[in-house]
Amino acid sequence: MHALTLISLGTVFLTTSCNGRFFDNLEERYSESEDVSLWPLPRQFQSSPAAFKLSASRFEIVHAQDSTAGPSCTLLQNAFRRYFEYIFGYLNKQATLPNEVFDSELTQLQVLITSSDPECHGYPNLKTDESYQLEVDELKAVLKAPNVWGALRGLETFSQLVYEDDYGVNNINKTSISDYPRFAHRGILLDTSRHYVPLKVILVNLEVMAMNKFNVFHWHIVDDTSFPYVSRTFPDLSQKGAFHPYTHVYTPSDVKLVIEFARMRGIRVIAEFDTPGHTQSWGKGQTDLLTPCFSGSHPSGTFGPVNPILNSTYDFMTSFFKEIGTVFPDAYIHLGGDEVDFSCWKSNPDVQKFMEQQGFGQDYSKLESFYIQRLLDIVSSTNKGYMVWQEVFDNGVKLKGDTVVEVWIMNKLKEELQNVTGAGFTAILAAPWYLDYISTGQDWKKYYQVEPLSFDGTSEQKKLVIGGEACLWGEFVDATNLTPRLWPRASAVAERLWSDESVKDLGNAYTRLVKHRCRMLRRGIPAEPLYVGHCPHEYSGL
Amino acid sequence: MHALTLISLGTVFLTTSCNGRFFDNLEERYSESEDVSLWPLPRQFQSSPAAFKLSASRFEIVHAQDSTAGPSCTLLQNAFRRYFEYIFGYLNKQATLPNEVFDSELTQLQVLITSSDPECHGYPNLKTDESYQLEVDELKAVLKAPNVWGALRGLETFSQLVYEDDYGVNNINKTSISDYPRFAHRGILLDTSRHYVPLKVILVNLEVMAMNKFNVFHWHIVDDTSFPYVSRTFPDLSQKGAFHPYTHVYTPSDVKLVIEFARMRGIRVIAEFDTPGHTQSWGKGQTDLLTPCFSGSHPSGTFGPVNPILNSTYDFMTSFFKEIGTVFPDAYIHLGGDEVDFSCWKSNPDVQKFMEQQGFGQDYSKLESFYIQRLLDIVSSTNKGYMVWQEVFDNGVKLKGDTVVEVWIMNKLKEELQNVTGAGFTAILAAPWYLDYISTGQDWKKYYQVEPLSFDGTSEQKKLVIGGEACLWGEFVDATNLTPRLWPRASAVAERLWSDESVKDLGNAYTRLVKHRCRMLRRGIPAEPLYVGHCPHEYSGL
Repeated sequence: MHALTLISLGTVFLTTSCNGRFFDNLEERYSESEDVSLWPLPRQFQSSPAAFKLSASRFEIVHAQDSTAGPSCTLLQNAFRRYFEYIFGYLNKQATLPNEVFDSELTQLQVLITSSDPECHGYPNLKTDESYQLEVDELKAVLKAPNVWGALRGLETFSQLVYEDDYGVNNINKTSISDYPRFAHRGILLDTSRHYVPLKVILVNLEVMAMNKFNVFHWHIVDDTSFPYVSRTFPDLSQKGAFHPYTHVYTPSDVKLVIEFARMRGIRVIAEFDTPGHTQSWGKGQTDLLTPCFSGSHPSGTFGPVNPILNSTYDFMTSFFKEIGTVFPDAYIHLGGDEVDFSCWKSNPDVQKFMEQQGFGQDYSKLESFYIQRLLDIVSSTNKGYMVWQEVFDNGVKLKGDTVVEVWIMNKLKEELQNVTGAGFTAILAAPWYLDYISTGQDWKKYYQVEPLSFDGTSEQKKLVIGGEACLWGEFVDATNLTPRLWPRASAVAERLWSDESVKDLGNAYTRLVKHRCRMLRRGIPAEPLYVGHCPHEYSGL
Repeated sequence: MHALTLISLGTVFLTTSCNGRFFDNLEERYSESEDVSLWPLPRQFQSSPAAFKLSASRFEIVHAQDSTAGPSCTLLQNAFRRYFEYIFGYLNKQATLPNEVFDSELTQLQVLITSSDPECHGYPNLKTDESYQLEVDELKAVLKAPNVWGALRGLETFSQLVYEDDYGVNNINKTSISDYPRFAHRGILLDTSRHYVPLKVILVNLEVMAMNKFNVFHWHIVDDTSFPYVSRTFPDLSQKGAFHPYTHVYTPSDVKLVIEFARMRGIRVIAEFDTPGHTQSWGKGQTDLLTPCFSGSHPSGTFGPVNPILNSTYDFMTSFFKEIGTVFPDAYIHLGGDEVDFSCWKSNPDVQKFMEQQGFGQDYSKLESFYIQRLLDIVSSTNKGYMVWQEVFDNGVKLKGDTVVEVWIMNKLKEELQNVTGAGFTAILAAPWYLDYISTGQDWKKYYQVEPLSFDGTSEQKKLVIGGEACLWGEFVDATNLTPRLWPRASAVAERLWSDESVKDLGNAYTRLVKHRCRMLRRGIPAEPLYVGHCPHEYSGL
């Protein structure tokens, strides 16, 4: 609806070079071409007012001749279709270009994968190279990336470069982009225990994650409240621990679908099975797993954390995590380890006796560490790496060198980062991005202004901060409100984790984010408004 | 999903009498029949464990023989269909009763309208009698009401009494209800200016209002940001003042549809055209309506509130409100009058001169009152009553006796109610129910615990508090998130305004509201969760 103020075309060819350091230039450029709005902002970016038209009947996304990927690369084939749809999907009933080719028309995007292994059938991981280069010029554009993962990021950027002119015709400016993420781990945590989140809602949010270049879905799949994960080895866990054993569960094929849907979008799925606390729902389908709490000298009938003093507990965990290691292909499993309440352990005479035998005194964090240590060893033996919440590190548990420690306690955040990285462990930041906390107004600014590396530490320590996660805990969200509550608030985190540290101007971010949100609406996503205003195409769902 | 713990049936016939005073009894009864959950709670309520089945193929809602309404009463015909659908709509693919009639089956709900004029083709108003009586017994149920408006409330209650048993069969208990609202004005304010709210979203929310027995849609239709109302008399107002003149407007036929859709559900539509402040968008399509602001001795190019010193202003208002009075059938128009910023008036030399001529000194609230007074006289001459925000009363404007003063400033709320009612005016309460303010947690409890009459005043004064409104201002909501943000938070306000003052137990309310929310989900409404948990039928939209 807004008139495109850009005065094009033809031979005029001005470029401005922009990355974080030349941000002011960028702002200037954006005021010229107000319908383009990249999110997150690429690392290096050159553009000119020269614009080329795109016609749905002629434009194609193809494998470049020298690409190591070809039509058998279903991941890319699928992505080509998806981005063609994003670009032209809405135009079907709208403007179409006449039959003759325009002077200045872009007819092809060639995707060139350069590595000998394009990784078409693999999974992304922590070391994945997500870089890409994009050159848009008359007649053709070239997207070059070492592998399919960078190509996916570049396709998203390409689709964001396309804008509609006053006649509803798609345009793209002459552009040159070189881009790569600042942090390797850029995640979204969804909690499917406190409320069940229907499969459809998970898939849609994976879709939006890709639009924002997130690359990790941290699936906090079970917790105290319910156990929706259907285990082949222990089917009673969901049969008795889910809200409903048929309507409120994730079957093996559901989980496979989520993982494959995510893979196609360059997103890792890291499942969290949090123990020894947060396990009330486990106890319903697995007898003797949880610690019986005592009231005086008698069992009270209630249960506490996982029982750390029984061999059967470790037998169970061995079988269970063997299955989990097979079901989830990612190299990491999240083992939780947060918020363990000691009161039940303290009440239980058998646990008291065990504490004495082990010489733990009254220090129940030693018992917690005892449990976690054994669990970590079990999981390590399945050849998986693990992530843990910060308490596991804080309690002095011996961790493998590749452990990722997730920092979630806001109070003393910087000290924690200092300590974790000082001890040589990698850390990710969750604390400043608990999106389940809501307040009136534009809280995205708060998330945006977080600088993950603003703690005292050597450059080696800073390198150990590998990213962060926007966490949407499930107490107050389900299918009715999850998606608009997450987006575009999580988009603020997306740019912080992808773009250069120097990209932090709130005014510029607001202008781009408003448009990015309108783009999400146009792609059918109910992303909530940042503030007063409108989008040319409002959300058309309920 | 939860098993129905009620042990029925047959000859056992126990009743407990419940209204506000016997609330403890009620709680007991609910624990017996845990799938029934009325919201808002009726005034008098008797029920027994005797349950009757309902079959979609045999159950009918009909006009009672002695009813003054018949098949020509489209409002009721339509409501019969709607409530049949609410009760049986989901069951199509599920359990159906065998062909023979059960021993204990309810086959008919007879609706008996008793007044000589059933008001089938009228509109509800402030004096409308919404009372009804409902008797459910074997074979037939009777819903008796003076007019169609009470019948609509009773149909909602009837539909809430029906519950599904373990076999998916619909049941209803032997029940006797006598019900009427505590307050006459029970409203929802939606703001369609700061964001455009698509027609579909307005209609859905009218639907949900009826499920919660709200009876006023306060349509804050225009404001500074945009003017989506298409005026026949002044088409430029929306042509130039809307976000978009075609996609972001309400045409005359849209407005008609909203009014008729609301009428069919017993909901008044009170349009607000707020002046003299909050009018920036009016200025785009109506030259000279707004006051030109000055910077020193020169116009600054910006504009302030409506210009109160020009005759043309009053000519415009006369024509405009003549149209509004015709378009909106309700006896009241909301004229706004809140938050007038005097700085622009102060800067304008012509206004200064006028102030001097009128002897207003430097008291610009006198100028505001001067404007409002003339506006009120204009609107009165169209035979409409008016509602105003509290500032109009506070500034000492002379008001007609039937003026409704809307109290919105939280600070000194009780004093304001004392003053407004002390001066003999009717008041409605908005201040405690600004639902656009959000925070983490169960804020519905805060809304629920408001007691509108807890101010110092005579019983005559208390009678002048005729209700309240839950207000969802539009800064941060649009089609993506409006509905889940409003419901079930506004449901808390609904019960406060309908049920007896003594109905205030939070625990009981929580239990019922959780189920009421699940019922809204089942009817297709994305009402957000109150806290952890699940519904048998989750929201199936995005």
